[in-house]
Amino acid sequence: MSNTFGVKYRLTSFGESHGKAIGGIIDGCPSNFPLDFEHIQTELDKRRPGKSAITSSRNEKDKVEFLSGVYEGKTLGTPIAFVVWNNNQKGKDYDNLKDIYRPSHADYTYHKKYGLRDHRGGGRASARETVSRVVAGAIAKQLLDVYNIEIFAYVSQIGDIKLDENYYQNVKTDNILNCPDEKIANKMIAKIAEFKKAGDSLGGTINCLIKNVPVGLGEPVFNKFNAQLSKAILGINACKGFEIGAGFESANMIGSQNNDIFYFENGKIKTHTNNSGGVQGGITNGEDVYFKAVFKPVPTILKTQSTITTDCKQVEYTAKGRHDPSVLPRALPIVEAMTAMVALDFILLNK
Amino acid sequence: MSNTFGVKYRLTSFGESHGKAIGGIIDGCPSNFPLDFEHIQTELDKRRPGKSAITSSRNEKDKVEFLSGVYEGKTLGTPIAFVVWNNNQKGKDYDNLKDIYRPSHADYTYHKKYGLRDHRGGGRASARETVSRVVAGAIAKQLLDVYNIEIFAYVSQIGDIKLDENYYQNVKTDNILNCPDEKIANKMIAKIAEFKKAGDSLGGTINCLIKNVPVGLGEPVFNKFNAQLSKAILGINACKGFEIGAGFESANMIGSQNNDIFYFENGKIKTHTNNSGGVQGGITNGEDVYFKAVFKPVPTILKTQSTITTDCKQVEYTAKGRHDPSVLPRALPIVEAMTAMVALDFILLNK
Amino acid sequence: MSNTFGVKYRLTSFGESHGKAIGGIIDGCPSNFPLDFEHIQTELDKRRPGKSAITSSRNEKDKVEFLSGVYEGKTLGTPIAFVVWNNNQKGKDYDNLKDIYRPSHADYTYHKKYGLRDHRGGGRASARETVSRVVAGAIAKQLLDVYNIEIFAYVSQIGDIKLDENYYQNVKTDNILNCPDEKIANKMIAKIAEFKKAGDSLGGTINCLIKNVPVGLGEPVFNKFNAQLSKAILGINACKGFEIGAGFESANMIGSQNNDIFYFENGKIKTHTNNSGGVQGGITNGEDVYFKAVFKPVPTILKTQSTITTDCKQVEYTAKGRHDPSVLPRALPIVEAMTAMVALDFILLNK
Amino acid sequence: MSNTFGVKYRLTSFGESHGKAIGGIIDGCPSNFPLDFEHIQTELDKRRPGKSAITSSRNEKDKVEFLSGVYEGKTLGTPIAFVVWNNNQKGKDYDNLKDIYRPSHADYTYHKKYGLRDHRGGGRASARETVSRVVAGAIAKQLLDVYNIEIFAYVSQIGDIKLDENYYQNVKTDNILNCPDEKIANKMIAKIAEFKKAGDSLGGTINCLIKNVPVGLGEPVFNKFNAQLSKAILGINACKGFEIGAGFESANMIGSQNNDIFYFENGKIKTHTNNSGGVQGGITNGEDVYFKAVFKPVPTILKTQSTITTDCKQVEYTAKGRHDPSVLPRALPIVEAMTAMVALDFILLNK
Repeated sequence: MSNTFGVKYRLTSFGESHGKAIGGIIDGCPSNFPLDFEHIQTELDKRRPGKSAITSSRNEKDKVEFLSGVYEGKTLGTPIAFVVWNNNQKGKDYDNLKDIYRPSHADYTYHKKYGLRDHRGGGRASARETVSRVVAGAIAKQLLDVYNIEIFAYVSQIGDIKLDENYYQNVKTDNILNCPDEKIANKMIAKIAEFKKAGDSLGGTINCLIKNVPVGLGEPVFNKFNAQLSKAILGINACKGFEIGAGFESANMIGSQNNDIFYFENGKIKTHTNNSGGVQGGITNGEDVYFKAVFKPVPTILKTQSTITTDCKQVEYTAKGRHDPSVLPRALPIVEAMTAMVALDFILLNK
Repeated sequence: MSNTFGVKYRLTSFGESHGKAIGGIIDGCPSNFPLDFEHIQTELDKRRPGKSAITSSRNEKDKVEFLSGVYEGKTLGTPIAFVVWNNNQKGKDYDNLKDIYRPSHADYTYHKKYGLRDHRGGGRASARETVSRVVAGAIAKQLLDVYNIEIFAYVSQIGDIKLDENYYQNVKTDNILNCPDEKIANKMIAKIAEFKKAGDSLGGTINCLIKNVPVGLGEPVFNKFNAQLSKAILGINACKGFEIGAGFESANMIGSQNNDIFYFENGKIKTHTNNSGGVQGGITNGEDVYFKAVFKPVPTILKTQSTITTDCKQVEYTAKGRHDPSVLPRALPIVEAMTAMVALDFILLNK
Repeated sequence: MSNTFGVKYRLTSFGESHGKAIGGIIDGCPSNFPLDFEHIQTELDKRRPGKSAITSSRNEKDKVEFLSGVYEGKTLGTPIAFVVWNNNQKGKDYDNLKDIYRPSHADYTYHKKYGLRDHRGGGRASARETVSRVVAGAIAKQLLDVYNIEIFAYVSQIGDIKLDENYYQNVKTDNILNCPDEKIANKMIAKIAEFKKAGDSLGGTINCLIKNVPVGLGEPVFNKFNAQLSKAILGINACKGFEIGAGFESANMIGSQNNDIFYFENGKIKTHTNNSGGVQGGITNGEDVYFKAVFKPVPTILKTQSTITTDCKQVEYTAKGRHDPSVLPRALPIVEAMTAMVALDFILLNK
Repeated sequence: MSNTFGVKYRLTSFGESHGKAIGGIIDGCPSNFPLDFEHIQTELDKRRPGKSAITSSRNEKDKVEFLSGVYEGKTLGTPIAFVVWNNNQKGKDYDNLKDIYRPSHADYTYHKKYGLRDHRGGGRASARETVSRVVAGAIAKQLLDVYNIEIFAYVSQIGDIKLDENYYQNVKTDNILNCPDEKIANKMIAKIAEFKKAGDSLGGTINCLIKNVPVGLGEPVFNKFNAQLSKAILGINACKGFEIGAGFESANMIGSQNNDIFYFENGKIKTHTNNSGGVQGGITNGEDVYFKAVFKPVPTILKTQSTITTDCKQVEYTAKGRHDPSVLPRALPIVEAMTAMVALDFILLNK
């Protein structure tokens, strides 16, 4: 079940980085819904490498092809299968990886768990797998649109450059990091460009906002909205932490500060503050849901590192080929996609 | 499925704070295993209120009674049902809660989701529900003991008092917070006592360590070890964030610092650093797993606050009765219990 | 997961025949629904042994006690836990079973699978486990009542005595077998009484009818209405077969006979015949659902039989104690309960 | 979840009869296992239409293409995705079906459930969907082969022609029905040919045998070996009934006849008779598992029938195009495939 996500809206994903294709099956998509295929492709394009000076130069068209579940442009209620073919697969670039375990990659753990691995480009552990999440997330977003629910992710930190505030309520920008402060965005982009040159990599954080969430989403006690969201986000490659609302800052607050006081206005129950991040007791309370996730610096760097071979010899190793100095820009659509799947699933479960 | 946790080792929990009982059913426990009932009770006692000056004075014996699944002291392989009867249920203390929604509690969200609620003591949303987790976790710990796997949680921050280091490798203490630095522990305890007096509450963080984890636990891509662990921990009341390994600090690191370099020693592959927190690509790599979770200050404080009634009128409200100035001490066994269930489940899934 | 049934309306059951109690947890029951506790007890009484001359003389009161999930008579939307205490547990009657494997019982298979067993009264494999199904089924029936859906099971065959027709549309009787032909019912009852005397046992069949089923229940392709129903029924002890609609008789029919021709009347699409048993392509079509299940003669007989001991010696064995010459009368409420759970689950899934 | 089958060895299937492709994803397949691709294709060829005078003339090559999960001929432990492209799709043959509901087909139920349907060739309800089951079943068979477990299905009845016995222990034949009595096989084949000419259709039964089953497979109480098997088989199109062991004949037997007496021989516990069909208390006892399933005559016949249009008008309708007078020959590999998936899943669950 490890390759299936969701309860009612379920994505089962497949594909290795340098296999024939990446893809998935979406089961449980409501029927008779007109899909916007251009929107799906637009979302994929945001994730696509090779589209910017600060991301990997792997050049994949990443055109999605639907195999089932759609008829005359509408969902049938049957499983929606899709594939994205792998074309630009410079498998040979990875020949030198066959016999080593790269530091902080999944080479060693996969090899030990399964007894073998597809070493080319990280195989199943490659971030290329997230292509299928973006497709399922794009469809989820279209369905959420019916409920007026909107999702915005933005980069809030790259290395030592970060936003001052934790909770931006209006996030629509033009920059590739969707960072609401244009000046800081430019600094971040410059920093990434600098690290691309230097062959090293950067970590950072992404914030995400869900607007117009209805009251009542989330299933206590183990399947709380925040708990499932956290699982969704920690399931993205390189993510090492998640916090909702005031998050880790809550440790520094006292109850009388942290409590979100209710009031009633224009026929709606609201709260003055939103330290809860829109979730109380695991169930959404109608305020914005917002959270932050941290992504480690990608382990592939172009500097020489020490590591061990599959037969346990210490060697020097230098990565070749394409290089992403930071996953943050390309992680944005993935964070949004996972968030959309979680929100939609809870809406369907709540009926 | 919201009240069931786990895939092969599954706890289904039940019970409201002021109903007849709290309890659960454990399905999937390996058969023919001799249970240590005293150990289970010891774990429950750690979570029990009324046992210390710095926790709630609700006085429950919390004796667990097993109804099935055990025969002549050994597990049968059939479901293990257990109950803990609610005795000290001062339900009347809560009469004044019937018609209001307390700030930052789950009163409002439960009422809206379900159309009614058991207002007494928070009903299902009460932390009293975690009794069943501690029972299932204690049994999981006993099973993990066969594999030599050990779990230690300790309080690492209470309000503004915190430990200097993030990753303690030897954690066995005598203080109620299991805090490895005795001086800091004393300061924390004094701080909690001060807040108990003041009628306000404190947040903080708990760190947790899993030692002797075998390589290969965790199921990519959506059910990564860290992702499921995060869900388990965020599913605990008042938890607002989770990070594994270097966690949010990863944002400030660059790849060449953050990468954990492999080496081979005494027949084992190890890493010099452990920024990964024992997990690479969602699968354990044999190093210690360690993580940190943040808990907000409990919303029940003894100071007057503004809030609204169920018919949307603004009122002043002052909590009466028993009060826990910080959940952190009592959350320790719960964090360990959820961690044990996750680790055991992945071991059973890995077979 | 073997002790959990259902997807949205889920029963997790527990209990050995001679342990402390039998019971379960119902998760996913809609909230704010007023339960009729008398009705639940009435259903349990139908299943109860000791209530008739033709069933086992084990005398259990089988009073159900609810532990959670209900407040002021209404469901809370939280898990409904319940227990039925085992009182009349003549465990000593079973001392002679400790070291043998009874023929056609689950003694051998449980022992081999789990490495030990609770031999008293069949332990978990006892039909006593079905108490929890009847409770969950009774609540499901009450919820189905809102949709006007009714379920009727009746005994259609006992040994060589059987009904002429396969599909009775009006089934409300006063006899203990709910057999719509009173004369045949009396013959069946006499036959069972004869076998009780003789110390042997009888098999038979039960038919079941679901009336007023809406169109659209069932989830293709693997979770068809009939497939899940079949699993539910085959999961009852002693059941060896299931057929829906024309069932095995379909093998003798040709397409032009077997096809159910549609017509339109009073604003509804109907079929002239109902060989499909109300299900086409795994989805209900609005006609009555009807099916038949076969139950083998219970293996416990009071005659001496050859069998083997746990250390593989051949011995003569004669059962002592209480004896049910046929499970059919007591299986009626269980068949209805499982059917109700399936129907309700598909209604909840279809929303 | 309706398009996913299995717990540990899971098939998620997709595809409409006249969409681009049929296929699926297998999750949970053990890693490092060398696949025999020719064997998979051989199994598919058995199911393929157009290969015999007595089956439909739809001519599909049904070549399976693997997209992931296999590397250098071995399973990676990652999801195995596969597609079979639809080529011979005479969609136009079905134009006359757009506005009618064919008798005893799933046209009406799908349309009502989903609000639309792909009418071409039955869409998702087409037996073409079973292609994916045969692929997953073939791989399951190869894995079962490691345990020496063998599965044989054979046609036991076509219309009024049937085998005398219920339980053949050696079943390896050359005829297309795998019927162990060659004379009866020929009569069956002649009967089918006759009905193909006449444009009508025939029902029948398939028996299936699982040999060398280890003791201990099956998960009580709801997920019994026989219960899950029954669900698997009833989930095949046109199947209307299932019985295991003595099945419906059990109704005519008395306990002292029906009980399977144990004996000990050559270090193994065995039974003299096998009325239980190899399953006691839902768990396999080491004897052969055998069962029978009934398939109704396929609803598509070439004779004129009355039916209704989607706007509820009564019309005469005559099917055009390709026609399968009986599903039985082509259902054989599907029955074996579902059986193999069930057996393998229980082996993996039993670890």
